[in-house]
Amino acid sequence: MPLILVCYINAYAQTNIENDNRHQEMMNIILQKPKTDIKTIGVLVYDGFNNLDAMGPFQILKQMSGAKTFLIAKNRGLVKNNSGVSIQVDTTTSEVDNLDIIVIPGGALETLLLTKDTLILNWIKLIDKKSKYTTSVCTGAWILGATGLLKNKSATTNWYRANEMLALYGANFKEDRWVKDGKYWTSAGVTAGMDMSLAIIDDLMGRQYTEAIMLDLEYNPKPPYIAGTPKTTDPLVADMMKEMYDMVMLPMIKKEKLRLINK
Amino acid sequence: MPLILVCYINAYAQTNIENDNRHQEMMNIILQKPKTDIKTIGVLVYDGFNNLDAMGPFQILKQMSGAKTFLIAKNRGLVKNNSGVSIQVDTTTSEVDNLDIIVIPGGALETLLLTKDTLILNWIKLIDKKSKYTTSVCTGAWILGATGLLKNKSATTNWYRANEMLALYGANFKEDRWVKDGKYWTSAGVTAGMDMSLAIIDDLMGRQYTEAIMLDLEYNPKPPYIAGTPKTTDPLVADMMKEMYDMVMLPMIKKEKLRLINK
Repeated sequence: MPLILVCYINAYAQTNIENDNRHQEMMNIILQKPKTDIKTIGVLVYDGFNNLDAMGPFQILKQMSGAKTFLIAKNRGLVKNNSGVSIQVDTTTSEVDNLDIIVIPGGALETLLLTKDTLILNWIKLIDKKSKYTTSVCTGAWILGATGLLKNKSATTNWYRANEMLALYGANFKEDRWVKDGKYWTSAGVTAGMDMSLAIIDDLMGRQYTEAIMLDLEYNPKPPYIAGTPKTTDPLVADMMKEMYDMVMLPMIKKEKLRLINK
Repeated sequence: MPLILVCYINAYAQTNIENDNRHQEMMNIILQKPKTDIKTIGVLVYDGFNNLDAMGPFQILKQMSGAKTFLIAKNRGLVKNNSGVSIQVDTTTSEVDNLDIIVIPGGALETLLLTKDTLILNWIKLIDKKSKYTTSVCTGAWILGATGLLKNKSATTNWYRANEMLALYGANFKEDRWVKDGKYWTSAGVTAGMDMSLAIIDDLMGRQYTEAIMLDLEYNPKPPYIAGTPKTTDPLVADMMKEMYDMVMLPMIKKEKLRLINK
């Protein structure tokens, strides 16, 4: 929308919109002020981040009129996501001390590693001091939890050992697509980040602006089956997926639990 | 899934699975043969491609057991998508003459430019000779249409001037989330590419495998409003979006129409 929006505003600035109520109404939607001023939106990325965890929210939040949306990583250069695709990042955490919206995407083993990365955890706490929305997608809530910021807060995360993982960080798991507790917004796994991002747009800009973005994404989902949560998935398949994740993640989760208990 | 899958298979190869019917059933899901053999899946990208058009299908199709999924562009190096994010591409069209599945994502002006790019159109026709699935997402159908391959076929595309654009290439617009006509699969705008990709997985691997991927993506969408199509969107918003796109796209579409009529 941004480029198109600029063209639209320029074109109508040159017409006599006072005589055209319908176009005036359209301009009101586009040019309305958000509930709170949003100038900067940063999505934290790291090797192994889940591609859609980051790219869904990125594409949606980028449509916030008047805001700059960018990727942030520890180091400048290419960051490789869990799909094996490398993405160029031009902004480092050391260059940013202020964001209106921060988004922390999830992943698997690399996400667990980040829960012990003091530099990243301190940076998130720094950003959180002034942020208007502190958010996570999927297992990104584990990183956010590890900062201590979710303590005694309601939150959600990826379905995998969700309750157990959030309890580890003192958060109260709520089984919803996304959960809002004050300025802390957390979403369930991967695709839930898109629903949370649309809800943030809705919170800031209201229904018409949100519907504009939904149409831009033709977001009228038609999943092939009623599934996508442990409860709605074929029990054999749900168990298989949990066992698969356990095989990769559980040894490190057990170590992390011991570490936190002994802390 | 692939990495996790390998761990799972290795771990269970070392256990006595014959005594464990449940794990044997899980292995049957994972190791089943697809309806037709899929070894290579290529997603074409170009400057200005719509990020989610490509990345949704990429992440989903990458879960096809036994297949290699990769990005392909005219030139090696960074390709910048419509979100302003640059993505590293390591495979060029000149290096690939065979794909089991080809995915053509959409975009805006740059997509229209590609409909006149003989090198790309000829490459798609070459790939189509041996492909098992020739697919497009969103306005990617304009590129596929420009090759002539959609002539007299049922197809869909982004909602924006959908019928008119497909008619330009002799295709019959069908207003569905995705449309299958023989091996030609086309999806509606942006997020519809994910539903089409899951449908392709379902076609190849069946329900249990598809539900596994849906759980991996926690794909149980909850849009904030019933919207996302021109018919379900607030009429003022739908008109505004169409006018916005017209302002950017219509001059070039009109030129293209004249060119095709005079051809």
